[in-house]
Amino acid sequence: MDMTMKIMIDTIWVLITAKMVFFMNLGFAMVESGFARSKNCVNILSKNFVVFAVSSVGFLLLGWGLMFGDGNAWIGLKGLFFASGLDNSPAIGTAYKGVYSALSWTGVPMWAKFFFQLVFCGTAATIVSGAVAERIKYSTFIVFSFLMAMFIYPIVGHWIWGGGWLQLKGFFDFAGSSVVHSVGGWAALAGILVLGPRFGKYTKGRINPIPGHNLSMATLGTFVLWFGWFGFNPGSTMSADPIAISHVAITTNMAAAMATISATLLSWILLGKPDLGMTLNGCLAGLVAITASCAFVSVPNSLIIGTIAGILVVFAVIFFDKIKIDDPVGALSVHLVNGIFGTLCVGLFAQDKIAGISISNGLFYGGGTKLLISQLTGILGVAIFTFLISLVFWLVLKYTMGIRVSLKEEIEGLDIGEHGNSAYPEFSGRKPAYSFIKVDKE
Amino acid sequence: MDMTMKIMIDTIWVLITAKMVFFMNLGFAMVESGFARSKNCVNILSKNFVVFAVSSVGFLLLGWGLMFGDGNAWIGLKGLFFASGLDNSPAIGTAYKGVYSALSWTGVPMWAKFFFQLVFCGTAATIVSGAVAERIKYSTFIVFSFLMAMFIYPIVGHWIWGGGWLQLKGFFDFAGSSVVHSVGGWAALAGILVLGPRFGKYTKGRINPIPGHNLSMATLGTFVLWFGWFGFNPGSTMSADPIAISHVAITTNMAAAMATISATLLSWILLGKPDLGMTLNGCLAGLVAITASCAFVSVPNSLIIGTIAGILVVFAVIFFDKIKIDDPVGALSVHLVNGIFGTLCVGLFAQDKIAGISISNGLFYGGGTKLLISQLTGILGVAIFTFLISLVFWLVLKYTMGIRVSLKEEIEGLDIGEHGNSAYPEFSGRKPAYSFIKVDKE
Amino acid sequence: MDMTMKIMIDTIWVLITAKMVFFMNLGFAMVESGFARSKNCVNILSKNFVVFAVSSVGFLLLGWGLMFGDGNAWIGLKGLFFASGLDNSPAIGTAYKGVYSALSWTGVPMWAKFFFQLVFCGTAATIVSGAVAERIKYSTFIVFSFLMAMFIYPIVGHWIWGGGWLQLKGFFDFAGSSVVHSVGGWAALAGILVLGPRFGKYTKGRINPIPGHNLSMATLGTFVLWFGWFGFNPGSTMSADPIAISHVAITTNMAAAMATISATLLSWILLGKPDLGMTLNGCLAGLVAITASCAFVSVPNSLIIGTIAGILVVFAVIFFDKIKIDDPVGALSVHLVNGIFGTLCVGLFAQDKIAGISISNGLFYGGGTKLLISQLTGILGVAIFTFLISLVFWLVLKYTMGIRVSLKEEIEGLDIGEHGNSAYPEFSGRKPAYSFIKVDKE
Repeated sequence: MDMTMKIMIDTIWVLITAKMVFFMNLGFAMVESGFARSKNCVNILSKNFVVFAVSSVGFLLLGWGLMFGDGNAWIGLKGLFFASGLDNSPAIGTAYKGVYSALSWTGVPMWAKFFFQLVFCGTAATIVSGAVAERIKYSTFIVFSFLMAMFIYPIVGHWIWGGGWLQLKGFFDFAGSSVVHSVGGWAALAGILVLGPRFGKYTKGRINPIPGHNLSMATLGTFVLWFGWFGFNPGSTMSADPIAISHVAITTNMAAAMATISATLLSWILLGKPDLGMTLNGCLAGLVAITASCAFVSVPNSLIIGTIAGILVVFAVIFFDKIKIDDPVGALSVHLVNGIFGTLCVGLFAQDKIAGISISNGLFYGGGTKLLISQLTGILGVAIFTFLISLVFWLVLKYTMGIRVSLKEEIEGLDIGEHGNSAYPEFSGRKPAYSFIKVDKE
Repeated sequence: MDMTMKIMIDTIWVLITAKMVFFMNLGFAMVESGFARSKNCVNILSKNFVVFAVSSVGFLLLGWGLMFGDGNAWIGLKGLFFASGLDNSPAIGTAYKGVYSALSWTGVPMWAKFFFQLVFCGTAATIVSGAVAERIKYSTFIVFSFLMAMFIYPIVGHWIWGGGWLQLKGFFDFAGSSVVHSVGGWAALAGILVLGPRFGKYTKGRINPIPGHNLSMATLGTFVLWFGWFGFNPGSTMSADPIAISHVAITTNMAAAMATISATLLSWILLGKPDLGMTLNGCLAGLVAITASCAFVSVPNSLIIGTIAGILVVFAVIFFDKIKIDDPVGALSVHLVNGIFGTLCVGLFAQDKIAGISISNGLFYGGGTKLLISQLTGILGVAIFTFLISLVFWLVLKYTMGIRVSLKEEIEGLDIGEHGNSAYPEFSGRKPAYSFIKVDKE
Repeated sequence: MDMTMKIMIDTIWVLITAKMVFFMNLGFAMVESGFARSKNCVNILSKNFVVFAVSSVGFLLLGWGLMFGDGNAWIGLKGLFFASGLDNSPAIGTAYKGVYSALSWTGVPMWAKFFFQLVFCGTAATIVSGAVAERIKYSTFIVFSFLMAMFIYPIVGHWIWGGGWLQLKGFFDFAGSSVVHSVGGWAALAGILVLGPRFGKYTKGRINPIPGHNLSMATLGTFVLWFGWFGFNPGSTMSADPIAISHVAITTNMAAAMATISATLLSWILLGKPDLGMTLNGCLAGLVAITASCAFVSVPNSLIIGTIAGILVVFAVIFFDKIKIDDPVGALSVHLVNGIFGTLCVGLFAQDKIAGISISNGLFYGGGTKLLISQLTGILGVAIFTFLISLVFWLVLKYTMGIRVSLKEEIEGLDIGEHGNSAYPEFSGRKPAYSFIKVDKE
């Protein structure tokens, strides 16, 4: 095989799929602001826009080195700052000379590797945004995102994809159900606990639904995310392996399709009508759930995984509301719950070389509990570390710069308070956004 | 040539263009809901979102086998369920061993072929959605979409792309003016006839215009569709043939450009002002019209085809309204009328090897009427079958589960009635959507 | 190296990145209409939609030949009309036989070259749209766009990319900070001067802010543009050179990220709050600024360039308002100011072969002022020619067909006046759009 040519092909595959993952930032921005009220729309758009900028800087500054620099089982220690370590990519295997050997298996230039990993980092950071929406201070969110991209995400990433202890232990997470989605979910949960629920959400023992202001935007965003996932999962091969990337495209799609259907039907049964929000979150749940195992499971099993994901997300949304965890967009139900579930599925459904990639078989395919235990270990390790470090960061931020806007600002909307802008000055303005919540005033 | 490498290149081309076609689902969702009223917006978004999920399942379950499985001139008979037939793709030609020989000319893995064909199937199904909007029951639409993806589309597809009677007869439809657009159009027409017009559309002998609620969304959607068509048409090579894909990109673009211009100018002349809706539908008409012939006609001829398409769509919109065929988004004028016109154009403008692909010359290039007659036969065959089977399905659905929402629900809006959601609860809510139509009450 | 295969890879890279640049039309449409008032939304959407159609025809008709046809230092003279000159692409170098030798360095088919160059031409034309928004006559804008695509852009393009005097002089503009963005900016400035400010913008010595009607759309558009720029800049290699395209993706991204951050922080300092409009325009400014030098500067320097761009755009917005240059969307601050700045940066920061491409070193890397002087010459040459010819065209249009809508139409909104449509008939309609400006009536 002509290696020069192979590098060309692999590089355009990696770059194009990375661009698609970058595009998911738009998806998150639209889903999150669509599911929130118009009075906070500018704030959410701003958060979702700057978060990728901030992640880019944080990941370049330190994150990339911590994640992929040669080091110990816990963190990378070489080539830490500004991705400045030696690296002769696209050389691979034994020809590779450099300090980022964890990625020496893929024959693309270093900046292509960096770009692909950066957009994943950005995704983890943006997941937090929706969960803490409608009450967090803009400045505090920016600082947390920076810490997320610089420390939290890269350290967990090192464990799983950077040659760390979980990778050595035989833990598998193909495209990031844990690395990206659970990490984002745990960080979000810590944030929600420190922040508390939105004003008016849980009053007089009631759970007050706070409908999003624009379901067209939320639908648009979900389509963009589904599209972007065709970069996220198939791109995680980081090479244009025909069999693997085709297989992954289909498992990804079928899981999304079945989760869309099962969430729609379940909401129809439980709520009496097919709720569009549940349909959309169902789709995202299926995508998150298949992410860890997309290259390791058969197409029929991807249908099963998706079906369960769609059911899980509906119950999770109801559950979190019941225990007064106020997550305006369902980020925990989608990313945390299904990130965990998806990671677990590897241990259950994995089949060696189903798409040409080696893995030990999961429980349902005669592999016993070995892989399943690795997966459980990883889930637990990621949970403890991410939740605790995030909690510490959030608490430090709370007692230094403050974490929550004033009650007055929250009621009037963060758009005017934090940004001095209104998303739709001709249609809503300050007034309607305020009067909307007034009915819930205590 | 290094075949391993060629398979890599062809596979990434097929997958990336397939993703772009998938993305067209967003385009249809935005165009259709933008052209409808806000009180039905959630319903349209829901229909357009689940339709791809449902198509995915239907096409995997049976459609793929019926379309591409080896069989007779009418349907595929092998490897029917769950795409489970033997297949050693990416082997091609005589090296191919499997039951899907109609696609053995393209050297990509089976799941890449499946993905590319699936997104086309989804497009055909989503075309119906706009035409039946604002009055159809959600559940009934879902069932019809499933039948469409499982039976209607695959059977016609087998005739034309799966080795069936039209393909044998020398009928050509490069990227699906007939297979996708006319099929969608005929199924939509049958649905409209069974459903009847929207309440208030044709009253007291007048045709009441019902303007869409959001032309920003409609414009966004049309741009997304134009973009997606650069996957739809050039991707239909199913291999990265440099000359062909470059040629197709340009004929596609020039037809869209000229149709945009001719529809804009004609609406300016006929209506006194350049109507944005006509501009957008003009563009789509040009894209549909060039789809069958994009690889078979010269660039100058693509300008002619586009120009005519833009004129046709304007007259068609006016015509359908005059005969009280109520098509809220102009789906028939775009997809049916121009699907037929585009299919015909192959018989008129085709030139052998203009982009390196063999075809007999059309009428204008010395080929006589041979190709033209094949095209006319195909148009007729597709029309009769698709219209009749769709009519049967719609009628069965009408008399079993019911096809139309209640008049009360239609007036109040399908969003609350079918979904219990409102797309913009802060801006419109129930009230404005209701009062909007009140003026037309009989 | 297998040339057949290399042509395949290069062609899909060029086509896919071209499609992404095409998609930027959506970005511009959303940014510009989001930053304008709802009463002019249909007009802006229409302008942004037809502009690409019109550019396609103009560039095919004559622009391509003027730009890339063999000719003299000023214009192309061969193969002028309908891209009909002889051309045996994808042959390259000495094997190339044809009349478009300026592009004989890239081994892709002619229509792939044409497509890539066409979408760039469309971008230059669409930049003008935002600057002249909310008061220009639709018909006049269409005619100007046609002239832009047929004459203005191609002539400057010939100088810089078509073998003209600036290219011979050693002027470098990798992806078009000058060719696309400054050209668009100068044409826009001339248009603004001929048009004058919007009614109510500068009254009684005050500068009246006219907020955009939909910041969700503006944010969506900016994300789309950022995404599209990953086609714009890395695609400008016009071949899938792994090192170069990876490098360019990162310099592009880091400049955008830093500009987003610096514009946000500066607006926070200057205006007291982080303005979302500034954040978005900051991002675009960074993208424009890095465009000329993206393949010639190091990653750390891309951060510096971006940071400065974000600062420049904020001051430029304030400056243009102060001198009563009414630019509704900040197009001059983004495209003109940063187009110039970006072009200059090549002369300052360029490093030979930093991404494998040869260039002489800039001032900061020991190259002295040679390159810097070339860049300044180019900036000046482009400025004089583009501004003057645009001014002539605008003035001729003003005194023939007229350039500005009537005051009554401007107050009532161009949507009803020019198109007979309303973008959101259920939400705003004529009334609110009118009453909105009434407060500023003199």
